[in-house]
Amino acid sequence: MVELVKIAVDAMGGDEAPGVVVQAVVEALKASDKIKVFLVGQENAVRSELSKYEYPQERLEVVNATEAIEMAEPPATAIRKKKDSSIVVAMKMVKSGQCDAYVSAGSTGANLVGGQALVGRLPGVRRSPLAPLIPTAKGVSLLIDCGANVDAKAGDLVQFAKMGSIYMENIMGVKNPKVGIVNIGAEEEKGNALVKETFPLLRECQDINFVGSVEARDIPAGDVDVMVCEAFVGNVILKMYEGVGSTLIKEVKAGMVSNTRSKIGALLVKPALKETLKKFELDQYGGAPMLGLNGLVVKTHGSASVTEVKNSILQCIDFTEQHISEKIQAALNAGA
Amino acid sequence: MVELVKIAVDAMGGDEAPGVVVQAVVEALKASDKIKVFLVGQENAVRSELSKYEYPQERLEVVNATEAIEMAEPPATAIRKKKDSSIVVAMKMVKSGQCDAYVSAGSTGANLVGGQALVGRLPGVRRSPLAPLIPTAKGVSLLIDCGANVDAKAGDLVQFAKMGSIYMENIMGVKNPKVGIVNIGAEEEKGNALVKETFPLLRECQDINFVGSVEARDIPAGDVDVMVCEAFVGNVILKMYEGVGSTLIKEVKAGMVSNTRSKIGALLVKPALKETLKKFELDQYGGAPMLGLNGLVVKTHGSASVTEVKNSILQCIDFTEQHISEKIQAALNAGA
Repeated sequence: MVELVKIAVDAMGGDEAPGVVVQAVVEALKASDKIKVFLVGQENAVRSELSKYEYPQERLEVVNATEAIEMAEPPATAIRKKKDSSIVVAMKMVKSGQCDAYVSAGSTGANLVGGQALVGRLPGVRRSPLAPLIPTAKGVSLLIDCGANVDAKAGDLVQFAKMGSIYMENIMGVKNPKVGIVNIGAEEEKGNALVKETFPLLRECQDINFVGSVEARDIPAGDVDVMVCEAFVGNVILKMYEGVGSTLIKEVKAGMVSNTRSKIGALLVKPALKETLKKFELDQYGGAPMLGLNGLVVKTHGSASVTEVKNSILQCIDFTEQHISEKIQAALNAGA
Repeated sequence: MVELVKIAVDAMGGDEAPGVVVQAVVEALKASDKIKVFLVGQENAVRSELSKYEYPQERLEVVNATEAIEMAEPPATAIRKKKDSSIVVAMKMVKSGQCDAYVSAGSTGANLVGGQALVGRLPGVRRSPLAPLIPTAKGVSLLIDCGANVDAKAGDLVQFAKMGSIYMENIMGVKNPKVGIVNIGAEEEKGNALVKETFPLLRECQDINFVGSVEARDIPAGDVDVMVCEAFVGNVILKMYEGVGSTLIKEVKAGMVSNTRSKIGALLVKPALKETLKKFELDQYGGAPMLGLNGLVVKTHGSASVTEVKNSILQCIDFTEQHISEKIQAALNAGA
């Protein structure tokens, strides 16, 4: 018998928890028979949501955790004090080896702090980056790091490049993924102090396919598979993506119904346009993995849809089956 | 008689120089009788372009400069060695007081280096930021700094905030402009080391209307008039704006003509859509000013259209008539 991938899911995380999370878990269990889910949260609330659905009961366990960490709480304090919160209880199940992976739509800060403090980094990993996939004209690219470690050092960025390469090659099936460093110009002498220090280190790496600088302007085109950057910059890129995209789409839609002639046109255009814009929706790609930990931590949006949470759960299967953590550890400890 | 605003224009800068530049100068001269333009560049080429147009000859002078600085040249070396280049000659006309302002679509690097080295900073100005206006859902906001000074210090960012406020209030007519610092979260404790150090300094400034952090996601909404950031981050924001916008618009257009039904719809929608997207085109706002120098330096895109270059020239009028440089100097030397 094949061993199931065991996933701890934070039932209390996200704007519409536990409802959205419970529904997503049920859908994930139906979509794949390779997983067993441990739903961690306030038992009564979780069971009440669960009672709405039919699902394979032998692959679901509810684990009671009486506390919940709110979005606005200071992360480090919350993780330290709320020992019976869903995040803390679920993360400890990964640390102990009871689960392979963890998924949460809860507080980003608490998940980032908890990932490093409770799940813990693999030996040799300096910092654990948050690495979302972002949609591009050619498919998706990995943006690494995106919020976990502001003020990173050059050595951290080199590790991010290696971890990102392994992820894209093994999970996304990109052969010899192209790695670029986010920069403000194409030439090697461009950049701030951090980029100038990191660039030659990346060029010397034997185990990645470093292609040089990638300007922010070229990110949406998708010419590079792994985009390495410091977390403050990565966060700005991710948020700009969301902000510019949603503002433009809103304006385009409003513009289309601004008069009768174009209202009729809008009706005709709508199905094709919907198909096009789907490519640029973040939720079909699931959440962002934190790489380099003792088990997979996936952080998905607080406003995540059922589809996004479901996909975040399903992405844990490949991660575990492909032994990404082991590959990362081997690569970091073999190289420079 | 009212004194004319005297503007040195780099005739050799930009992808299609001198053609585009000369045409833009002619249109600017026709659009406003408040300006006199000094067209600096290779005289034969400039005069040959000029011969195509009718224009008020008494408000145009051609100044010969035999060299041109190419986009790919190392900026500092080019400025030092090419003493008879259009950029160097034109900038010196500002430094000497012969001109009030300068406009170029040439090498960003050479213009930034030249601005600081040849035109020179006003007394008390630590660094001179490049500050483009970016289109938002509510109009435009100033993004400062956007490429002139990577690895800036907290004290630099405080000056940027003051300069940006003066610009938005006096040039764009925004009363008591809202100033935000670009950050990765809304709370004061969020951010990297630079932002954490700068935040309390901005809060203490009496002469600006500081409203706190602005997340990149909220930039396109336009809730803040002046967005302060370090240049690497600012450059990424600007380039993401261009990249995401153009990729999305391209995909939307392609999606619309993907089948017959939507092709017909696209025809009906087109005029309204064009009107909407116009708001998000960068060229109607002219180029980006470098603030805090002994005269105005305006850098416009290498690929700038005739309209963008023309608007860059016309924006020098308000800047000079409103005595922005004097106001900046007074504010920086009065305050903390």
